[in-house]
Amino acid sequence: MQRYLLNDKTAIVNLELSRIVIISDDAHHIKNVMRMNIKDEIIACYQEKSYLCEIEEISNKEVCLNIVNEISEMSELPCSVTIAQGLVRREKMEEVIDHITELGADFYLPVIMKRSTVKMVEDKLDNRLTRLNRIAKEAAEQSHRIKKLDVLAPITFNQFIQMSKLYDLCLVAHVDKENNLYIGDAIKNESKILILVGPEGGIDQSELSLLELAGFKQVSLGKRVLRTEVAPSYIMSIIDNIRGNNHEI
Amino acid sequence: MQRYLLNDKTAIVNLELSRIVIISDDAHHIKNVMRMNIKDEIIACYQEKSYLCEIEEISNKEVCLNIVNEISEMSELPCSVTIAQGLVRREKMEEVIDHITELGADFYLPVIMKRSTVKMVEDKLDNRLTRLNRIAKEAAEQSHRIKKLDVLAPITFNQFIQMSKLYDLCLVAHVDKENNLYIGDAIKNESKILILVGPEGGIDQSELSLLELAGFKQVSLGKRVLRTEVAPSYIMSIIDNIRGNNHEI
Repeated sequence: MQRYLLNDKTAIVNLELSRIVIISDDAHHIKNVMRMNIKDEIIACYQEKSYLCEIEEISNKEVCLNIVNEISEMSELPCSVTIAQGLVRREKMEEVIDHITELGADFYLPVIMKRSTVKMVEDKLDNRLTRLNRIAKEAAEQSHRIKKLDVLAPITFNQFIQMSKLYDLCLVAHVDKENNLYIGDAIKNESKILILVGPEGGIDQSELSLLELAGFKQVSLGKRVLRTEVAPSYIMSIIDNIRGNNHEI
Repeated sequence: MQRYLLNDKTAIVNLELSRIVIISDDAHHIKNVMRMNIKDEIIACYQEKSYLCEIEEISNKEVCLNIVNEISEMSELPCSVTIAQGLVRREKMEEVIDHITELGADFYLPVIMKRSTVKMVEDKLDNRLTRLNRIAKEAAEQSHRIKKLDVLAPITFNQFIQMSKLYDLCLVAHVDKENNLYIGDAIKNESKILILVGPEGGIDQSELSLLELAGFKQVSLGKRVLRTEVAPSYIMSIIDNIRGNNHEI
């Protein structure tokens, strides 16, 4: 069933009255792309809950929904994962955001690192973030998630170190050091996990030292060397295997 | 260190004399792209072994190497995995091949399925396969593998069913059926594993029935719905987590 992730910018929601009015591009999508009609059903996700809804009215720019019932869905991981990545080229960033959204990540955080070879131009930042967040929304809807990944604005490395204090577990994927901890062994029952992946050129030694001081653990991503656009998918798959599918219980 | 995956078409190898002569594009790469010189070292991989080599001579089209010693590398999975996929668009196929090579798969097998919306034109098939295999070679070298993934020519669904008999474990990733087995629980100690992922449009019911008859187990890829280009990376990551990194031993 078609699914829409809504928030207070894209819909007027009144749960007490079981009413949702979609006022965003999603209304256009329901009306003109999906060509849906009154009485058709969709799933609306709002504030991390999902609702089976029936279309009650379709006007020029709005779609009114009646909430039939709340649905219990288990598509989210039991922990919140932020993938931080040294700033990489636009196409790679889009691919990573698409993949890790499907795989259950909550935040994508671009970090300006020493070996990042690209820059995000300040003027274009808003447009870029809007586009990246749209990619995340579509991937979340497609993969039956009930919340979308948030793409955050790029921050400096120092800001990143500060921000890392908000997490229960901070990891950095790095291959050079011998006897690294395998990522699968580093993830326990933490509820807020931050994992940094370097840019194409890798992580500078000075950055690694600062990360270590800030309490980051170095982890390996297995025995092969993964490129920066493949590493985030691997990380999210491993976390999903360990935390998202309690197959051993 | 720069790494080259060689075979009998791209190099003349005499292990007894500790000699390798590279006669392929790799010679051009060593000479003109990497601008390497005599006495520089590279890693040459041949017949699933890797050798530290020193460049002894660089001529117009050939590079002669002296094998210094064999290196013990553990970058390969202990099982051979074939990812079969309903025929998908070229760009998606290239992305998948690149990713699953880095993640340790041995074969990529395109299957002509009912809901495949694309075709591989017979005339262009050789060129396409050459290009896809080059992508696999580069991804293998980049990720420090000692063998490359082989991209096989597309086969029909019936041929695929026949071919599946060569495997110890045959799985099909499918989300519709309730109470599916999670892929992480389906992988044990098999040495030859075949996993089919549908094309964009999914797997037709008639195909699912034939797969079941042929002994395929249906598996889920977790709680979210993964698109056909993300599913193979997820599968390979989970197999690597379970089989490639014996972290529980």
